Amino acid sequence: MALIVQKYGGSSVRTTDHIKRVAGRIKDTVTEGNSVVVVVSAMGDTTDELIEMAGQITNKPSAREMDMLVTTGEQVSVALLSMALQEIGIDSISLTGGQAGIRTEAVHGKARILDIQPDRIHRELKDGKVVVVAGFQGVTDDGEIATLGRGGSDTTAVALAAAIQADVCEIYTDVEGVYTTDPRVVPHARKINEISYDEMLELANLGAVVLHPRAVECAKQYNIPLRVRSSFTKNPGTLVKEEAEMEQGMIVRGIAHDLNVAKVALVGVPHRKNSLQLVFKKLAAENINVDIIVQSIVHNEVSDISFTVSVDDLDKACDVLNGVKEELNASEIVCEEGLAKVSIVGAGMISNPGVAAQMFDALTEAGIGIKMVSTSEIKVSCVIDASQVHDAVKALHTSFGLDALDTVTVAK
Amino acid sequence: MALIVQKYGGSSVRTTDHIKRVAGRIKDTVTEGNSVVVVVSAMGDTTDELIEMAGQITNKPSAREMDMLVTTGEQVSVALLSMALQEIGIDSISLTGGQAGIRTEAVHGKARILDIQPDRIHRELKDGKVVVVAGFQGVTDDGEIATLGRGGSDTTAVALAAAIQADVCEIYTDVEGVYTTDPRVVPHARKINEISYDEMLELANLGAVVLHPRAVECAKQYNIPLRVRSSFTKNPGTLVKEEAEMEQGMIVRGIAHDLNVAKVALVGVPHRKNSLQLVFKKLAAENINVDIIVQSIVHNEVSDISFTVSVDDLDKACDVLNGVKEELNASEIVCEEGLAKVSIVGAGMISNPGVAAQMFDALTEAGIGIKMVSTSEIKVSCVIDASQVHDAVKALHTSFGLDALDTVTVAK
Repeated sequence: MALIVQKYGGSSVRTTDHIKRVAGRIKDTVTEGNSVVVVVSAMGDTTDELIEMAGQITNKPSAREMDMLVTTGEQVSVALLSMALQEIGIDSISLTGGQAGIRTEAVHGKARILDIQPDRIHRELKDGKVVVVAGFQGVTDDGEIATLGRGGSDTTAVALAAAIQADVCEIYTDVEGVYTTDPRVVPHARKINEISYDEMLELANLGAVVLHPRAVECAKQYNIPLRVRSSFTKNPGTLVKEEAEMEQGMIVRGIAHDLNVAKVALVGVPHRKNSLQLVFKKLAAENINVDIIVQSIVHNEVSDISFTVSVDDLDKACDVLNGVKEELNASEIVCEEGLAKVSIVGAGMISNPGVAAQMFDALTEAGIGIKMVSTSEIKVSCVIDASQVHDAVKALHTSFGLDALDTVTVAK
Repeated sequence: MALIVQKYGGSSVRTTDHIKRVAGRIKDTVTEGNSVVVVVSAMGDTTDELIEMAGQITNKPSAREMDMLVTTGEQVSVALLSMALQEIGIDSISLTGGQAGIRTEAVHGKARILDIQPDRIHRELKDGKVVVVAGFQGVTDDGEIATLGRGGSDTTAVALAAAIQADVCEIYTDVEGVYTTDPRVVPHARKINEISYDEMLELANLGAVVLHPRAVECAKQYNIPLRVRSSFTKNPGTLVKEEAEMEQGMIVRGIAHDLNVAKVALVGVPHRKNSLQLVFKKLAAENINVDIIVQSIVHNEVSDISFTVSVDDLDKACDVLNGVKEELNASEIVCEEGLAKVSIVGAGMISNPGVAAQMFDALTEAGIGIKMVSTSEIKVSCVIDASQVHDAVKALHTSFGLDALDTVTVAK
């Protein structure tokens, strides 16, 4: 007897047969006595097909008209899923984002949800209906249709769960849950039973793409338990919540890696009060996201400043630095590709001072050179050569006791 | 310098290339100094494809969810057409039915427009934009999406033209306009330059499917001139208005035929005050549309009642009659298929008493037997054998001087 929000992604509804299967799954949840609100993405490749049609007409479509176009994908899904529920005897109603009371900023393509007025949803739930809501969309105060951008359907589901004070928000996907690391790299990676919001956020930001960081942030803000699980099995998946139990003797929850890393270094910058400020202000003005920053003092009067950016931003970042090289009186600018970032994540490491040291040990033992290091309270990241990233993940997975055999789950 | 509503049907926007062509056409109208509101249908077979998907899920979809589903078709068209206009430098905005202020009855699948609040359209026009409105749809007072049923996009266009007091409503189609008769039957059928609302209504109701009768009714009610023209040529097409000029010496404007005709007869019904009432009340209760009705008195005490229905309704109509046969004390019920209706239409016939006689003459000369006759002020219809319908149309086209060679237009 709970109030449950379920979110099904595009791969879970990619054909009408898939939609029927999802309807059966929802029916099971209803039959167990729960009230259910469902959030659905567009079927399979629908969004890409719509974008392709727009591309046949223009290569610079207005964001407003793109929103008008692509939101039809979710509208089709909700109507068909609602029909499939009714066909198997479950009373239901589909709602567009606007009908569901999802109010967004007056921005197109990447609007944030301002608030949700859940009156209509409450009314339909009270009538005993399953409410099927189009993900990824809302309306502005002017009645314009706006999309939420990447990860939008996850965010819709979590925001709805917060607005109606749901007991849990279930995110259905095509994997069994969140893994200790990418199962394609470490085949004996284990499914994690519980993980905290903060750990999940670090993993999500570090390239574990099961959940979008915005959705995790929203769940953390409103303290909505998230359950990531497979739409193809009945397994419980991974529970994401405020305080997650650590398994016996574990310090690290999971290991992430990211190949979209490039490094830029300003070498031999004479000391000046505002040199760091100058560099990063110019980068921000160009919308370049900087990740790890290291300033190393070479001798008393000169230091090296290096930082990482995504590979796409490398050329732009080098241009920016060449523009300030003279002003800073730097001796050289070095740009480097072919790098990767490997990270260990775990709330337990705050109280375990030796964790970073253990990480460096494990990498060194495996013959992997560390180029940069960055730490936070629940994360340590190292930049290494891209060619060694799989070896690094395997070494760390073993070193931190994550591949214990008794709980091995075979990844799909 | 006029305010023009243009409506483009599904065949005019069936690919992105077609959409670009339509955008070019709209640009021409704008460049001539006009303000333009455009109504668009779904692309080509989109609506059928959506209905087919629903059919894979259920064979009794709720009308509400069907409306949610199929209205996405028009939403895709308006977004793409608006992008195509912007791409060629024409400022434009797409609107759903709801955003355009089209308010409908709280009925799904065949709602009627209650009113249109054109504030948004006026605002966008004032900003110098072409306003592209999704046809066939509106919203109810509860914010539900409702479709208008058959001919819906034509009706949207005419209703919008009325609401914004447009100077003319142009209906773009894949033929050159309204013809004196079906060019597939009479290859030298001529395009009509002008026709009155009433004549157009008769022709539309009689199977000339260029315009939907509801749209013509609406245009008549608000006195909006309609222009039916081809989206592939620059020809002026056919103007539909209150008082249409008759060409020199013409009495008949056009000839229609309909093969969807079946006849039912109650034979030997003894006179009773309420026998007609009884029969047609029962038929109405079964939602059977009756067209021509003839009551012929056989002798003082007994009459035959016969009427036509559409072929689809024949079985149901026979069932109804068999149910009342005893009560009416009728001697026999005869159901007949394989019939057709041929009609001459023209406002001029009111003042020309010999028109019906000329029609019977022409048919008889051509060896065609007349089974039933029905007349109105601007129309005479005869029911004949379906096998003779083409001969009948040709004979009447010649007899009423419609195939004069000096104005021959070749039909597409």
